[in-house]
Amino acid sequence: MITPASPRLFHFYAGDVGEWKITKIIQVKGECLAPAARLRMSATTDCAQTTWMLRGTTSNERYVTREEKASLGQKQQDLGRASATYAVLIPIKKKNAWWTLSQDERRSVLEAQSRHIEIGLRYLPAVARRLHHCRDLETVQPFDFLTWFEFAPSDLPAFVELLDTLRATPEWQYVEREVEVWLEADAA
Amino acid sequence: MITPASPRLFHFYAGDVGEWKITKIIQVKGECLAPAARLRMSATTDCAQTTWMLRGTTSNERYVTREEKASLGQKQQDLGRASATYAVLIPIKKKNAWWTLSQDERRSVLEAQSRHIEIGLRYLPAVARRLHHCRDLETVQPFDFLTWFEFAPSDLPAFVELLDTLRATPEWQYVEREVEVWLEADAA
Repeated sequence: MITPASPRLFHFYAGDVGEWKITKIIQVKGECLAPAARLRMSATTDCAQTTWMLRGTTSNERYVTREEKASLGQKQQDLGRASATYAVLIPIKKKNAWWTLSQDERRSVLEAQSRHIEIGLRYLPAVARRLHHCRDLETVQPFDFLTWFEFAPSDLPAFVELLDTLRATPEWQYVEREVEVWLEADAA
Repeated sequence: MITPASPRLFHFYAGDVGEWKITKIIQVKGECLAPAARLRMSATTDCAQTTWMLRGTTSNERYVTREEKASLGQKQQDLGRASATYAVLIPIKKKNAWWTLSQDERRSVLEAQSRHIEIGLRYLPAVARRLHHCRDLETVQPFDFLTWFEFAPSDLPAFVELLDTLRATPEWQYVEREVEVWLEADAA
């Protein structure tokens, strides 16, 4: 029985080939990822030789209210804008203490205490974003989330400010492992 | 690269072998599952010949509040009680309209309008239950959830009442496909 891959599953292959040049990999918390030259994003699973491979699936939102969903929908931009030649992949693993919270407690930490959604909204439409979930895949994964960010070089200071602001929140006390993979598109 | 299977992943193999005898398969909504003699529940992926195979992973709760989580924790029983010789596997797929709701809207349908958690609590500890999620696996799955129920033969009327009560709620208007797989353990 061959079961087709989910159409919402994305793979990130780090190695010698790929449309994105890896400019740096920064260890934020916990173990880092091994250095590599290029990153390839792909919807298909293949057996190419890679330094490391991460994967995750897009899914329904877990926390946003109808009002927040509408605000996000109005402001956010699609991936793949010609101007967005910088990208950053941020894999995150949260502590077990996060996953044993109830839904209302997680929402309270995420938004009432940390303003995660509101902070993210401030950086739209400059920073485009896609969230991938890894925790409920068939296979054991080293991270719970992979967030992919894209922006123009001129929006780099805003992006760094976004990361600093989020990392100062109570929600980030639940982060066990975090890595930044900085990427640059080849000149067209 | 061999990635180990998630320790929270469970497989349900229907075919000629298995610790549970399939006594009937009932089509509740949408396409039914093919008939088979036995069902095997397994933590490992194998290539055995099967009539059908379903799989899903346990995960963090998506809706319960702290108070509800505490009530459930106090009342619910583990699977595998010697008295629980009846089991029912209920695979469910929800409509796309469910998945595009925001979190507050889904919680409102599930509990404020449908009392799903409160209804479930009424049938504890008689009915033991484990919920498996299939929607965010790597592979395309025919269902979103697999719920496994176990109970003693004397609690059969209560279990049927639980199903009838839940199916009369607004939440069930979002159900697109549902099947009941009725099972009996072999006499010890």
